[in-house]
Formats: sequence, structure tokens, C-alpha cells
Amino acid sequence: VPTPLPIPTPVDIDAAARRIAGHVVHTPTLRSAVLDELVGAAVFVKCENLQHAGAFKFRGATNAVLSLSDAEAVRGVAAHSSGNHAAALALAAARRGIPATLVMPRTTPQVKRDAVARADGRIVLCEPTLPARSATLAEELRETGATEIHPYDDVRVIAGQGTAALELLDDAGPLDLLMAPVSGGGLLSGTAIATHGRDADTIVWGAEPAEADDAHRSLATGVLQDDPGHSIADGLLAALSERTFSILQEHVAEVVLVTEEQIVLAMRFVFDHLKLVVEPSAAVPVAALIDRAGTLPPRVGIILSGGNVDLDALPWC
Amino acid sequence: VPTPLPIPTPVDIDAAARRIAGHVVHTPTLRSAVLDELVGAAVFVKCENLQHAGAFKFRGATNAVLSLSDAEAVRGVAAHSSGNHAAALALAAARRGIPATLVMPRTTPQVKRDAVARADGRIVLCEPTLPARSATLAEELRETGATEIHPYDDVRVIAGQGTAALELLDDAGPLDLLMAPVSGGGLLSGTAIATHGRDADTIVWGAEPAEADDAHRSLATGVLQDDPGHSIADGLLAALSERTFSILQEHVAEVVLVTEEQIVLAMRFVFDHLKLVVEPSAAVPVAALIDRAGTLPPRVGIILSGGNVDLDALPWC
Repeated sequence: VPTPLPIPTPVDIDAAARRIAGHVVHTPTLRSAVLDELVGAAVFVKCENLQHAGAFKFRGATNAVLSLSDAEAVRGVAAHSSGNHAAALALAAARRGIPATLVMPRTTPQVKRDAVARADGRIVLCEPTLPARSATLAEELRETGATEIHPYDDVRVIAGQGTAALELLDDAGPLDLLMAPVSGGGLLSGTAIATHGRDADTIVWGAEPAEADDAHRSLATGVLQDDPGHSIADGLLAALSERTFSILQEHVAEVVLVTEEQIVLAMRFVFDHLKLVVEPSAAVPVAALIDRAGTLPPRVGIILSGGNVDLDALPWC
Repeated sequence: VPTPLPIPTPVDIDAAARRIAGHVVHTPTLRSAVLDELVGAAVFVKCENLQHAGAFKFRGATNAVLSLSDAEAVRGVAAHSSGNHAAALALAAARRGIPATLVMPRTTPQVKRDAVARADGRIVLCEPTLPARSATLAEELRETGATEIHPYDDVRVIAGQGTAALELLDDAGPLDLLMAPVSGGGLLSGTAIATHGRDADTIVWGAEPAEADDAHRSLATGVLQDDPGHSIADGLLAALSERTFSILQEHVAEVVLVTEEQIVLAMRFVFDHLKLVVEPSAAVPVAALIDRAGTLPPRVGIILSGGNVDLDALPWC
């Protein structure tokens, strides 16, 4: 019998909230009369696109970085990531004054490299394959003695991501349903544990592109599926880990699937009516709400996960 | 000697704040580490793009509509406007359950007509000339008995617009400098009166396109200039009234001018780094801050006036 993987508790998430207070933005929870009317519920929108580095990822990265001992911290942190975790970890490390090494595939768009460089992160490029990324990261860890901060398969990271839900519940009051997008499952895991720590009756949903429905299939089959597929929601293409899968199995009632067209329409809706810049991944729960319009419970919360989108390549331009 | 025009006092703005509380969004005041670093000051950004109907105009319109007696209210309100005031007034009237008539030139883009129609405003189209707009509005007022709510030359409207600055000061604390864009001068007048009601030492600046610099020239010459010119900041093309001009003369230290290129760059900066959808007019104070980078006092507030922009025609697309 394998040892159960450590998972964060609601107490860990409360501790993370205290640890990162003053370091992260307590982002606003916004309402939209147009959205409420469209979906037939009171919707509370947690704006993590307004977080430092433009995404909720800064919460988990900051909690992980601030959890390190001074002896660990001086050797720095490292991760392989081509997305929001990379910029978030670089910024969290810079704010503690420690080095961060980010292993990124050579194919990473310039806009994402720039975000890491802006936070003084050290970028190490590798071939765009998982073995190359893992081997390059392992070599960097050996050479620097840095601590790996995995983007989602890490108790400190999951606890940090869960703090967004705590703030949302503090600001909105009790909710009937809370929804977050799912990729590797760090945000959804933290959200679910935090939410059920407050009220076991609140329904927690994930939202996922139908073209990258591995979490949906994992929950449906009871077996971790690691073939995410492809979607315009390029932040949602990681596979669950055994740890996040087990958390989702315990806490998540449903993973709603939405089409690529629904994602683009929802993204445009958020720009047009909420006046917020969001990346396609962040529009996925909005698309899910619109898909389920008229069937939702009275009070619904969603987490707008991030706003890091290339404005020269908006899908409607 | 002409009778001085009535102007709102700080007490009127406090009363407006109480009147419209619960009807308007207490919009968030956001910070941006990137913006602070770029301009060399702590900048507090008041997000009126997140206001109902997407602009600060809903404050003045709501204060005016809620100031009407029941007998006045049943006959409705009317205005000529092709911009944010039209949608704001329609929505404010709809929320009180009274009719609103908006006189708009035939050349008004569909996106702006849609915003009025969404709030059940009655649109009356006219030829795109000032005489035609005035004549058409006069006829509508005669026929309906509605009350005209001018977009800026109205004490109730100016008082309502001033409530944004009160919230900003409540949320940010004392500021050394506060800046708003200037068009007809309603927002800047309300902002200045509210700000100096709190602290006479706070510097108040306007911001204006150099290509539509009538307010700047009015203050420089002491004579109201009514030839605004043309700019991508299409919300800033109205001329001051005698009333708003007199308020600006008393309260505004400077109107900063920015080029069209600076406006577009600032707009893009707000999308990219603040993750907010703003119209070009709202980017004008941001452009002014960037223009004055390194010379600003420690604590600066700006009002992001609105977010109603045609996303199919972003200047960088």
C-alpha cells in the first residue's frame, strides 16, 4: 500500500493566507449586472488577472518561496514552466531577493520570456519535449542546489492557490457554487479544500476545454488521464498529478466542458462587459456559466485565473 | 454684472455620494508595481471603467435622476449625447423606472446605440450638427415634458461625478496630486471640488489630448475656447461650459497635454499591465503620468474614466 500523498488542509491554506498577506494583491471581487442577467444567478468574479504577474500563480509561488528556510532560500528556486508559473515564481523569488531559474522550451513565445526577464528570472532554454525539460531542470537543480517549486504538484503551491477562494468567500459571503478552471489541478485543488473548509455544502466545479478534457475524463473513469489535447486556452494543457487527482476526486462534483467557440465568446464577453483583460483560460469558467445559464444556484463564484494574453493576437482581431 | 452660475459645493458632493450609494459601483482603486516603477510615484488608479454602463458618467446621471421629484421623474429625462452619458442616463432612468430619450446623430456607431438600447433608452436620431441636435432635443423636451440632463453643465451631474474622487481618497488616503481627463469639464470639476473639500493643498491636474487642447488653451488665455479639435480620445471632444470653465480656473493647476501616440501607448500599457479594458480617453491621464515620469510627487491618484471601446477596432489591431 503506497503512502498517501501529503495534501494541504484548510489550516494550511489559512496559514498560507497569513504568510502571503501584504505580498499578494487582495484582488477585487466584481459583479456584473449583464452577466447576472445572462446566466440567471448572482455571480461573484474573483479577479486574479489583477494579481501581481497577472495570474493567481503568484499566490502559490509566493507561499512556496516564503516557506523556505533561509538556508534553502539562498540557493534559490527553480521550475520548468512556459507559462504563468514561470513569471510568478521569478517575481516571488525576486521579492525575497533570491535567484530563480526557469527552464523553458525554445519555442516559448517572446512575450512569456519577457515576463520572466522583467522579474530578473534566469531563463534556461531547452528542447520542447518533456524529457528535455525534466533533464535540464534536474541538471540545474544539481548545479545550483535550488529548490524545485513545481507549478501544481506541491503542497505549498496548492495551499497558496487556495487563498484566492478564501478572499472571495470573505468578500462575497457564502456561495452555493464555486468554479475554477482546471489544468494541472493546483488552483482547483486549493479552491476546493479552502471552500469545503468553510462550508462542506458548497458545490465545487471545475471548468475545462472540451478539446483538452483530461480532468473530466480522469474523474469519469477514475483513472488519471494524461493526454490533455490542444485548446486556445493554452494555460489549461497540463495533466493532473496523482495528488491533485485525489483531491479533485474527493471535492469536485463536476468538470464542465466548453467548446473553443464558447471560450472565445466568453473571453470577448469579459472584455466587453466586465472591462477586464483575461487570457483564454480565464474565460473557461465564464463560458461554463453561460453554458449552464438558467440552471445555476442563486449565488455563484468564479475565479478569473489570469490576464496574460498577447494583445497583438486577440482571437477576434 | 451677470449672476454667478451655481456650482456644487463639497457638501453637495457628500450629499450626492449618500444619494447614489447602493446604486453605483464603489469601484476598486488598484495599484500597479509596473506603473509605479515606470513613473516614479505611488499611483492609485480609480477604475471607473468598472462602473455600471462602463464609465464614471453613471454617477452624475444617477445623481441627477435621483434628484428629481416624483412629479418630474414620471415625465422622464432627455439629453443629446452620442457617448457614455447617453448609455449612463438611459440606465439610470431605467433603474428608477422612468423613460429616457437620447438624441443622437445619425452617424453614431452601432456599438454606442446598442449600449443605449440595452438600457431601454429611446433613441431619436438627428442630423450630425449641433443646431440639429439642439432643435431635436428642444422638440422632444416640449413633447414629453422630460427634464434635460446635460452631460456636464449641470450642478447635479458635476456633484455626482465628484463622488469618484471621494471614494478614491477614502480608499487611497491623502494624495499629493489627483488627475482626471477633461472634456466638457464635468468630471474634472467634480473631482477638483471634492478633492479641495478634503484638502486644499492637493494639486489637481487635468489631462487632455494635444490635438484637442481647448481646455488647456482656455486656462492659458482666460477665455473659453470652444474648438476642441479631433483625437483618438473621442470622449474628450466637448468644449467647457462657462460653469465648468470657472470651476477649473479656480481649482486646476495645470492641464497636461499628450500626443495621439502617447495616448495609444498608454492605452496599450493599461491593457498589458493593469489588465483593464479602457477607452482611449481613459488612457489620457496615464499618458500624462508617463510623460511626467520622474517629476511627480510621492502619492498620485488618477481616474480611469471609462472602458467603452470597440474591441474590433483597437488601435494596435
